Amino acid sequence: MPKQSAAEVQAPELPTRVDRRKARTRSALIGAAQALLAEGRVEVSIQEITDRADVGFGSFYNHFADKAELWDAAIIDTLRQHGDFVAAVTADLADPAEVFSVGLRVTGRLPRQFPQLAQVLANSGTKYLLSDEGLAPQALRDIRAAVATGRFDVEDAELALAMTGGSLLGLLQLLDSRPDADAEQLADEFATRVLRSCGLSRADAKKLVSRPLPQLPWD
Amino acid sequence: MPKQSAAEVQAPELPTRVDRRKARTRSALIGAAQALLAEGRVEVSIQEITDRADVGFGSFYNHFADKAELWDAAIIDTLRQHGDFVAAVTADLADPAEVFSVGLRVTGRLPRQFPQLAQVLANSGTKYLLSDEGLAPQALRDIRAAVATGRFDVEDAELALAMTGGSLLGLLQLLDSRPDADAEQLADEFATRVLRSCGLSRADAKKLVSRPLPQLPWD
Repeated sequence: MPKQSAAEVQAPELPTRVDRRKARTRSALIGAAQALLAEGRVEVSIQEITDRADVGFGSFYNHFADKAELWDAAIIDTLRQHGDFVAAVTADLADPAEVFSVGLRVTGRLPRQFPQLAQVLANSGTKYLLSDEGLAPQALRDIRAAVATGRFDVEDAELALAMTGGSLLGLLQLLDSRPDADAEQLADEFATRVLRSCGLSRADAKKLVSRPLPQLPWD
Repeated sequence: MPKQSAAEVQAPELPTRVDRRKARTRSALIGAAQALLAEGRVEVSIQEITDRADVGFGSFYNHFADKAELWDAAIIDTLRQHGDFVAAVTADLADPAEVFSVGLRVTGRLPRQFPQLAQVLANSGTKYLLSDEGLAPQALRDIRAAVATGRFDVEDAELALAMTGGSLLGLLQLLDSRPDADAEQLADEFATRVLRSCGLSRADAKKLVSRPLPQLPWD
């Protein structure tokens, strides 16, 4: 006991170690929740979640008040991963319409490359379409910039954002129902239609979508 | 007791009465489920559902194996109501592009007229976008017919359907986040953008969407 007290006094890193352990537990819970969300299994008990995360049952309540709070944290973490990924892929592009287009084309390719991430997005429902996290705020900024440069003809940018996000969920649903379909081809047709709904002519939309994609991490 | 037996023997309507009672119980459970879905409250106990439906706890299992089965039945019932409603409103229209357009415009107006129906649709997620129930099969038929008449320029009708349904969920989400917004104006801008994504020019889409709506039951 005296030894431990001495360690507590002399070791400024002790809180950090506790913090790290807490962060690991939180991260394990979020990872388990993402796997369950991807499987569409939200009707599970907290015991099942902590078992899957391999953490103690009681530790759940150190991090989350209830399951709804965990699902929310897991979805927001997924939205951020997705937003960061698209931001990295589009970092070198100047035309906001192309940034927008590449975001759609890359996201439409996710189900085959990152099925769990895509499945969490697909199952998260429409509640997060206007979220301040993830791709939505970036896409809203791109839409407004493309309107400013005259590329897009959009009166209500938030409506265009909500419609684009919703139709992306529709694409993910379709890809899920057609496991053997060519996701690249469908993602590009999807992007072409969204660009046309934003005001590009068929020819301009096809031209933009036929541009080579930036290097993707899985290529 | 002998009286009751005699009644059982002599009354061929008895099974019918039982059937009617069973149908009432099922209908009460589905109504309660629709109210809960509209409120986004799916994390309720079966006891809460049967209390809300004002039926006995045990009767739940005469109709549904579990909550997931009840949610599914409640959503499909809502999809059918919605599909029947749009079919009735568009019954006298000949141009499939206009049938499609009116379906979108009318559905976008639902949140202000039938908030619970709209909220169930909004919360049902993307799982039902390609459903065989409700507006989806009608819309798919309209898209294909409009392609056949040359009005729409759509390669993959199911992709257009999934995108349209998803973007409709996005519109419902936006309307939910803007309780004071003009739903008619947003619904019509939404319909215009969907028509443009299906190949109509801006002018043709605006023209189609500015046509008077058929008589609506609430007008």
